[in-house]
Amino acid sequence: MPTIVVDVMPKPEILDPQGKAIANALPRLGFTGFAAVRQGRRFELTVDGEVTDEVLAQARQAAEDLLSNPVIEDVVNVAVLDGTAAEGQNA
Amino acid sequence: MPTIVVDVMPKPEILDPQGKAIANALPRLGFTGFAAVRQGRRFELTVDGEVTDEVLAQARQAAEDLLSNPVIEDVVNVAVLDGTAAEGQNA
Repeated sequence: MPTIVVDVMPKPEILDPQGKAIANALPRLGFTGFAAVRQGRRFELTVDGEVTDEVLAQARQAAEDLLSNPVIEDVVNVAVLDGTAAEGQNA
Repeated sequence: MPTIVVDVMPKPEILDPQGKAIANALPRLGFTGFAAVRQGRRFELTVDGEVTDEVLAQARQAAEDLLSNPVIEDVVNVAVLDGTAAEGQNA
């Protein structure tokens, strides 16, 4: 069944203590190439049937209404996941 | 500065009570097109400089060592985020 991915991240002006903790831990573990880390959430919604425009609109609305807190979070991505694609350049 | 995205999801055989709660709440709010929801985590690592193969290898290693719990979670995506790209088909 097709899957819609919704990505939610803390707004840039919101402190992200978990991300900060990870950013502080990375160099201690020998990972020195990173300046900052932000932690957000990823949802995978399994679609019951075909991904129509209506289903995508529902997913976008659900992302705003239920999956994110609009006071502190931004919905950064609502997209159909195909089996092979990955975000941006594949790595 | 470039950003590397790391996506971590609970393994399929692991219960995901938060995802389940969301899946149960969706129809009550009028979102009827979805059969299941899984909740995972998304990390955005800001790279200090260029994204080299070495930095990507560091990100992949950090994803396994620090960002995920390999007993219950899978790293499903490690990718360079470019400003415009989104995962799968853009929605």
